[in-house]
Amino acid sequence: MTQVRVEGGEFAGWSYWEDEPYEAETVGPFFFRLEGETPVAAFRAERRHMNGAGVVHGGCLLSFADFSLFAIANHAMDGGYGLTVALTSEFLSGPKEGALVEARGEVLRAGGSLIFVRGIVTGDGVPCLNFSGTIKRLRNKS
Amino acid sequence: MTQVRVEGGEFAGWSYWEDEPYEAETVGPFFFRLEGETPVAAFRAERRHMNGAGVVHGGCLLSFADFSLFAIANHAMDGGYGLTVALTSEFLSGPKEGALVEARGEVLRAGGSLIFVRGIVTGDGVPCLNFSGTIKRLRNKS
Amino acid sequence: MTQVRVEGGEFAGWSYWEDEPYEAETVGPFFFRLEGETPVAAFRAERRHMNGAGVVHGGCLLSFADFSLFAIANHAMDGGYGLTVALTSEFLSGPKEGALVEARGEVLRAGGSLIFVRGIVTGDGVPCLNFSGTIKRLRNKS
Amino acid sequence: MTQVRVEGGEFAGWSYWEDEPYEAETVGPFFFRLEGETPVAAFRAERRHMNGAGVVHGGCLLSFADFSLFAIANHAMDGGYGLTVALTSEFLSGPKEGALVEARGEVLRAGGSLIFVRGIVTGDGVPCLNFSGTIKRLRNKS
Repeated sequence: MTQVRVEGGEFAGWSYWEDEPYEAETVGPFFFRLEGETPVAAFRAERRHMNGAGVVHGGCLLSFADFSLFAIANHAMDGGYGLTVALTSEFLSGPKEGALVEARGEVLRAGGSLIFVRGIVTGDGVPCLNFSGTIKRLRNKS
Repeated sequence: MTQVRVEGGEFAGWSYWEDEPYEAETVGPFFFRLEGETPVAAFRAERRHMNGAGVVHGGCLLSFADFSLFAIANHAMDGGYGLTVALTSEFLSGPKEGALVEARGEVLRAGGSLIFVRGIVTGDGVPCLNFSGTIKRLRNKS
Repeated sequence: MTQVRVEGGEFAGWSYWEDEPYEAETVGPFFFRLEGETPVAAFRAERRHMNGAGVVHGGCLLSFADFSLFAIANHAMDGGYGLTVALTSEFLSGPKEGALVEARGEVLRAGGSLIFVRGIVTGDGVPCLNFSGTIKRLRNKS
Repeated sequence: MTQVRVEGGEFAGWSYWEDEPYEAETVGPFFFRLEGETPVAAFRAERRHMNGAGVVHGGCLLSFADFSLFAIANHAMDGGYGLTVALTSEFLSGPKEGALVEARGEVLRAGGSLIFVRGIVTGDGVPCLNFSGTIKRLRNKS
């Protein structure tokens, strides 16, 4: 789960976690960066992210939300590992192919064992998914 | 969103929905069938579904849960269309590469506009995701 | 569900809904008002709201969150009726006896049939409950 | 949070936790017992539990669900303390005054720090609330 910086293309300067087959290759890569002190996650909606109705599949938005939890909590986790224990979501709209999909949110509480995060995914700025998640901290590998 | 029956391989006799780029190609295909009167959804966990810790990525389980909502509600929807309005989930364990991932559940209430579903995803029979979802019925295209 | 304005006491000028035995009498009354254009809900934590550990009971916070959904969505509902179809929550801390418990939030989407709301409950300004809810509109009685 | 056994009345032989002002007095008491090895929680819906539409208030059902988490997890907690960290819910129907409201469910996973529970609340046998909750174990007081 090493953080890698993108060299070129639309997301030059953004980062992603490598050695993540699902997140960095199968559905992603999804990207994150700080805008000032605010963490932002993003990807560009492609044909492969679509459902049969021609908008981004709910499962893709949920995968991105799960990724975004860690992008948002990255600072609070301070290099430590964690895993998602719960994720809740409401679907507000469906981004179309070509849309810039972004997630922003905040850490609501960073306790010794649990971190609570909430956020909103947007497609070209329009809210499309509301989510809240709980991360359990794992002891750092040493 | 035409239902297609699989001809050969491990999931011969199971069905999936085609014209679903994300669900049937990018992360899937995911499959469903009736076992007696009980709907079951399934896929085989491959390397491309893994996270950096070597278990199925949470986003993949969520994508599968979203698919499973419709497999479980298929009968109640009677050929009609629907979309997920909310999905909640708790992560219980992480299936390893090679595991048979299945989902079973029930329709808790099928109202005129909303269908409530709950289910459990298992990996080789071990519970790995608890989920509940709400589907909004759409008018059938005619 | 007539809206009543409080005449005196700590919540003078705030409103509540009468003919609500549970909400206005048993656990409440809970109150709401607009601060500028921002809806706020509030109550004062009393001994009767406490759990065995000496903080506001989770069920009380959930009851207040359910009330707050409608306070927050009041404008979007424009005098119409509605019912909660789903509520999700994470507990962040426990307000003590005497704390001013408030809820603030926003309507994320007000569709023709469903209204999506998220909010945060605080105790003396400290976040104690994160919540999201979905309201289904009912046809107005006429 | 001492467990007390009811001597008489409709819930003779059931238990509740005392020193719980909100749960045992304000909205309750709510009761629990084992039916064989199956934990069941229950209360009788009274006028004071109603909303303005004449069915049990959503907040009351949520309070009862939060109580029921601990009734269901009681054995897994083995006398230890715990607190709710998350609760999700979908509302299926509204029990009327006089209904016997019950909750049944199961522990999905009892880990070293977190316990995952799901359950269904019924009113006179009709499903009215689907819920899932996460309990965090606290160290026993000694």
